[in-house]
Amino acid sequence: MSFAFEVIARDESCKARLGTIYTDHGAVETPAFLPVATQGTVKGLTPEEVAVAGYSLLCVNTYHLYLRPGYELIREKGGLARFMGWSRALLSDSGGFQAFSLARIRRIDDEGITFRSHIDGSSHLLTPELSMLVQGSLSTDIAMVLDECTPYPATEQEATRSLELSLRWAARCKETAKPEQAVFGIVQGGVYPQLRKISLEGTCELDFDGYALGGLAVGETEEEREGIVAEFSPQLPEDRPRYLMGIGRPEDMLFAVSAGIDIFDCVLPTRCGRNALLFTASGPINIRNARFREDDSPPDEGCSCPVCTRFSRAYLRHLFLSKEMLAPRLASLHNLYFYADLMSAIRAAISEGMLASFGKVFLEKYHSEDEEIKLEECSDEG
Amino acid sequence: MSFAFEVIARDESCKARLGTIYTDHGAVETPAFLPVATQGTVKGLTPEEVAVAGYSLLCVNTYHLYLRPGYELIREKGGLARFMGWSRALLSDSGGFQAFSLARIRRIDDEGITFRSHIDGSSHLLTPELSMLVQGSLSTDIAMVLDECTPYPATEQEATRSLELSLRWAARCKETAKPEQAVFGIVQGGVYPQLRKISLEGTCELDFDGYALGGLAVGETEEEREGIVAEFSPQLPEDRPRYLMGIGRPEDMLFAVSAGIDIFDCVLPTRCGRNALLFTASGPINIRNARFREDDSPPDEGCSCPVCTRFSRAYLRHLFLSKEMLAPRLASLHNLYFYADLMSAIRAAISEGMLASFGKVFLEKYHSEDEEIKLEECSDEG
Repeated sequence: MSFAFEVIARDESCKARLGTIYTDHGAVETPAFLPVATQGTVKGLTPEEVAVAGYSLLCVNTYHLYLRPGYELIREKGGLARFMGWSRALLSDSGGFQAFSLARIRRIDDEGITFRSHIDGSSHLLTPELSMLVQGSLSTDIAMVLDECTPYPATEQEATRSLELSLRWAARCKETAKPEQAVFGIVQGGVYPQLRKISLEGTCELDFDGYALGGLAVGETEEEREGIVAEFSPQLPEDRPRYLMGIGRPEDMLFAVSAGIDIFDCVLPTRCGRNALLFTASGPINIRNARFREDDSPPDEGCSCPVCTRFSRAYLRHLFLSKEMLAPRLASLHNLYFYADLMSAIRAAISEGMLASFGKVFLEKYHSEDEEIKLEECSDEG
Repeated sequence: MSFAFEVIARDESCKARLGTIYTDHGAVETPAFLPVATQGTVKGLTPEEVAVAGYSLLCVNTYHLYLRPGYELIREKGGLARFMGWSRALLSDSGGFQAFSLARIRRIDDEGITFRSHIDGSSHLLTPELSMLVQGSLSTDIAMVLDECTPYPATEQEATRSLELSLRWAARCKETAKPEQAVFGIVQGGVYPQLRKISLEGTCELDFDGYALGGLAVGETEEEREGIVAEFSPQLPEDRPRYLMGIGRPEDMLFAVSAGIDIFDCVLPTRCGRNALLFTASGPINIRNARFREDDSPPDEGCSCPVCTRFSRAYLRHLFLSKEMLAPRLASLHNLYFYADLMSAIRAAISEGMLASFGKVFLEKYHSEDEEIKLEECSDEG
C-alpha cells in the first residue's frame, strides 16, 4: 500500500488546508467531494464520464454490495474497481449506516449488527471482522471502520454506550484490516462535545490512516452540526485526511472546509439530479418549473459542462415531463460538474489564502434564486 | 431543399441496392437503420452517442411531439434537431400510427382522425394538413404522409376503403407540404396483393420523394409479410428511397434488403436494451440469466463498441438485477452498435455482390444461441 497524505498549503484566514491523498490508484486533490456509487455505479453515469468530470475517488456502499452481487463474486472479479470499470481510487463505507437506515435491525451487541436484508428479508450478522473482509474483497483503497451511527436524539448515556461500542469495534477493524488497504477511524459522540472528545481521543489512539466525523446529518439542528464540525475538525490529526461523512450541500462543505475538513461524500448531486433539481451558481432550480418552458439558456449560465454546452433548460424540462431516461442522466452529470467545479474553486481559493472571501461571494450569488428548494426533501431511494 | 437519392451499386444476386440519401443535414448511406427518438430523444442516449455509433438519420414521432411539448414550441426553438441537439438528419412519421395504437380513437373520416390524448384525454383532430404543419414545424428532413394503418385482420372491402382514404390523404399531404421538406408516400393495402398494387400505383402517381411499405408488422404472419415485401419492394420506383416502416429484427432487415428496401426504423434495439435483451452475433441473450452471473466476457464477443470494450456480462447482469439506470443505457447503446455494424456489413456485402452469402453466414451464427427469446414480446411502452 502506498497510501499517504500531504498538506500542501493552508489558508491563514481559517483552518482550511489544500492537500493530496496518494493511493495505489492515483492521487486525489483535497478538499475533495466523493460521488457515491452505491451499488458499484454512480447512478446513470459511466465511470468514464465521472472521471472526465474531474473525480478521482468514489464512495461505495459495502451493505449494498455485500447483499448484491456479493463480495465473493467481486473478489473473484479482481475487486470492485475492475468489476465496475473504474480505474481510479475507491473508498468503501463499513456497511453499518445502511444496515441501520435500510435494513430491519434485529439486534446490536458487542459481536455486531444482526439485520434482515431489505431485498429478500434474509438474516445477516455484520461484525467488524466481516465488514473488513467484505471491504478487503472489494479491494477499495480506503476502508472505513464499522461503527454504530448514534441516533438523534440520544441521551448522553445512550450516546456514551454507543461511542464505547464503536471504539471496541474500531480496534477489531484495525486488527483485521488487510495491510494493503488504508483504514479510517470514525469519531462519534452525538451532539455532546464531551463525548466527541472521548471518541476522538480513543479513535486517535488506534492510529488510523485518516479520520472521519460520523453520526451527523441524522436529524440534529444545523447549529448543533456546525458546532461539532467547527470544534472537532481542527482537533483531528493534522497529518491525516479528515472526512465529513454524508455531507453535503455546497454551503455545508464550504463551512466544513473552513474548519479543516478534506473530503466529503454525499448522494445529493445525483439524487437531486434524478429528481429534476439542478445546481446553478444562483442556487438550485427545479427544472420542471413552468417558467423554464421556453427557456433557451443552458441549465447553468457560465457552466462549461457537456450538458450546459449542448442542451437548453426548455429541452431538459421536456425530458423530465416526458419521463425520459436521458433527463436524470443529464441532470446528474451537470450536478456532478457543478460539485467538481466548486471543489476546484475552493482549492484554488485556499492556495491563494482567499477562501473566506470566495465563500462569501459564492454564497451571496448562490442564495439569489427566488425559488425555495429544500434539497433534503428530495428522496427516491435509500 | 437539397434532397436526393442515388443508387451506387447493386447486388446482382438479389434486388439489394447500395445508395446514398442526401439531405440538408448530411448524407445517409443506405441500406440504413433509423433509431427511433420518439419524444425527441433516443431513450437514454445522447445525440452525440448515437451519432458516434454511426447513425446519420433518426425517426421521430409526430404524435408524441405534437402532444408534448407541442409543435409551436419546437418551431420557435428552430425545429426539433436544434431543440434536441442533433446535428444530422431527421425523418418524422405522420402521427397516424400512434394515434391508432396509443390514443383512444373517436372517429376516422375523410377529414382526419379524431382522438383523445393518451396523456391527458384531451380531444384532437389530426388531419393531413395538420400532420404536415406539425412535421413542418419540427423541420425534419423527411416527412411522411398521413395514412390509415389498415388493421389486421381486415376484409378486402375494409382494406380497400382504407387504402382509398389513405390515397386521398396522401394527395392532401403532397399539396400542403413545405417545399423545403422531402415527403414520402406510403403504400397500404393490407395483405391483399391486388390492393397493394392499386395503392402502389396511386401513390406513385402523386410523385413523392421516397416510398414506404406501411401497414406491416401489425399482426400478419411472417409469410404474409415476407410475401408483400418480396413482391412490392422491387415495384417501388427505382430512383427513390424505399422504406419499410416499423421493421425490424436483423433477419427481417436482411430479407427486406434483398428485396430492395433501403431504410428501416424500429424501436427494437433500444426497447430490447431497456429490457435486458442484448443482441449478439450468436443471437439475442437475456443478460439477467443466471448463467451470466460470473461471466467475464463482454456482452458480444468480437464487438468493439464502448460497452463491450469496457464492461462484462457479469457486471451488466448486476446492474439490471440492481435496477440501476446505467443498465438500460448501456444495453441500448450496445444494441444500437450491433444494428449499425450489421447495416455496415450489409452495405459492404452489397458492394461486393456478396449479400446472399453474407446473409447465410450471419443467420447461421445468429441462430446458434440456445436460449429462445421472443423479441416481439419485449414491451414497456408505446
